[in-house]
Amino acid sequence: MNKNSIVIGVDIGGTNTVAGKIASDGTCVQKINFRTDVDDSAAFIEALKLTIQQLVESSSGTLAGIGMAAPAVNAREGVIEHSANLRWGKLPIVELIKRHFAVPVTIINDSNAAALGEMAFGSAKGLKHFMTVTLGTGLGVGIVVNRKLMEGAFGSAGELGHMILETNGRACGCSRNGCVETYVSATGLCRTVFELLSYSMEQSILRGVAYEDLTANRVYDAAMQNDRLAMQAFTRTGHYLGRMLANTVAAFDPEAIILTGGLMRAEELLMRPTIESFKQNALSFQQKRLRILRSNFTDGEGALLGAGSMVQHWDAINEMVQTEM
Amino acid sequence: MNKNSIVIGVDIGGTNTVAGKIASDGTCVQKINFRTDVDDSAAFIEALKLTIQQLVESSSGTLAGIGMAAPAVNAREGVIEHSANLRWGKLPIVELIKRHFAVPVTIINDSNAAALGEMAFGSAKGLKHFMTVTLGTGLGVGIVVNRKLMEGAFGSAGELGHMILETNGRACGCSRNGCVETYVSATGLCRTVFELLSYSMEQSILRGVAYEDLTANRVYDAAMQNDRLAMQAFTRTGHYLGRMLANTVAAFDPEAIILTGGLMRAEELLMRPTIESFKQNALSFQQKRLRILRSNFTDGEGALLGAGSMVQHWDAINEMVQTEM
Repeated sequence: MNKNSIVIGVDIGGTNTVAGKIASDGTCVQKINFRTDVDDSAAFIEALKLTIQQLVESSSGTLAGIGMAAPAVNAREGVIEHSANLRWGKLPIVELIKRHFAVPVTIINDSNAAALGEMAFGSAKGLKHFMTVTLGTGLGVGIVVNRKLMEGAFGSAGELGHMILETNGRACGCSRNGCVETYVSATGLCRTVFELLSYSMEQSILRGVAYEDLTANRVYDAAMQNDRLAMQAFTRTGHYLGRMLANTVAAFDPEAIILTGGLMRAEELLMRPTIESFKQNALSFQQKRLRILRSNFTDGEGALLGAGSMVQHWDAINEMVQTEM
Repeated sequence: MNKNSIVIGVDIGGTNTVAGKIASDGTCVQKINFRTDVDDSAAFIEALKLTIQQLVESSSGTLAGIGMAAPAVNAREGVIEHSANLRWGKLPIVELIKRHFAVPVTIINDSNAAALGEMAFGSAKGLKHFMTVTLGTGLGVGIVVNRKLMEGAFGSAGELGHMILETNGRACGCSRNGCVETYVSATGLCRTVFELLSYSMEQSILRGVAYEDLTANRVYDAAMQNDRLAMQAFTRTGHYLGRMLANTVAAFDPEAIILTGGLMRAEELLMRPTIESFKQNALSFQQKRLRILRSNFTDGEGALLGAGSMVQHWDAINEMVQTEM
């Protein structure tokens, strides 16, 4: 890629969309956030088009391509489909954006984009076998085997948020019970708070908060004020995560697992019990060699950079993804 | 490979070792079984050498190579190490066999050999993404991603027998609790029989059998005589297996899972509840597209043929394994 080229990376979320201008060294030099119109796809496409134009026009470089990340992506067809949070039905987003920009345009699942971002610019530089676990509203996993994204036969590998962790456990949006993400995610943390509120007699700031008003950030703020119940909710979440990672490592045997997503704001509150529980639950010979890392990207930029990296290293990464299809 | 060449495939087990002469079309034309001397590695190597010589001498073809499969293999170093059932310590078996035969000699984990056997000559011909689950004394898994064996960063991917299926579940030989193989294996089946004997009031032939005398074959024979408790033990085992497969498919999204190993002698007794439970426990969009198949190999020949296939397609498969290392 020409040194004067720029790439636009886009991370489409259920609440906000972030578009960023990425320089050839992988730094995000400018970012624009806008609220995702989850009901009107035409309005969303228009907003995205204008945002990209704005980023391009404010730059002296030439546009080399646009890489997007979103939930519920069919990467082969370039469409977003049946997303729980984006009520657009089936949206041929690659085709719609290509109409406005005469450059390569691509889209990839956001969990996979996070893995590509870590591999291209982050903590996974130089690693061959690793996974990223994105802890947001749900739990998303990107799996890299031998420096290739593992997509599975039908493009849905990595649905580790829907491995069943607890028999007859919590009800999940997927209509089953006990899925990992009902315990290990921002939502899972809040559910754990309510389980603890029901079970223990511990005083807590959170006894004054209704279920629908509780957010992971409020639990975090409470924990920062030494609210024991809030801290315990993080500890439990880490214990669940450690058990999930032990199962994951038994299956995949990676060099490292990189944790990212909004919930990782809690840092040691979550990392310490996670590592403790991983050690308790992993096979003895797998315990020591795995590294559990936190992503070094700020503001969850990993998915945006990963989506952009699909363009920057267009040939290499395109081939990487193709071979798994 | 020359049409007159033969390959020796060897499957080393904790009880018996089988060596077979494989023709270039993948048929096993002659087999010799002998009891594995699990205490004396020198005696074992001598017995193996003599068996291979016998197979080679009774053949008009020339020996192209020897491919072996065993538990607890370090394929990179060509050694068997810290096996629970083979008390040989660290045995450099490839080097020891090479001293006697001037041909390529290789060794691979038996679960991976089963996957290679299915890919080269069995139910996985033409598949890109699949897994084999070998149900024997324990539970072994071979994972193929994009026609490549997945070995993991440290060579121990596929330890799915040690994913934790039940929190605080049955004690496992790996010193943890609730591992899949404590439920889904020949041993797991016997443990389930004893759980049912303790729990239910059902009459059963198996009430007259001591724990250490019970084998999966006896449970099978009882079930064939319509012993309801024995049949129930298979049903439960299938339910556990179906749940484990649902978790596995969430992670890997393969085209097919091929079931093999001694326990599969039970056929529909195990397959029916397995498929039923998989459908109950899998993500809805993953339920229909996965195929759960039985191996078509007789007498568990898959691992032997897979080990042999390492030699037969020496260049191709060697490359396949190398790239994952």
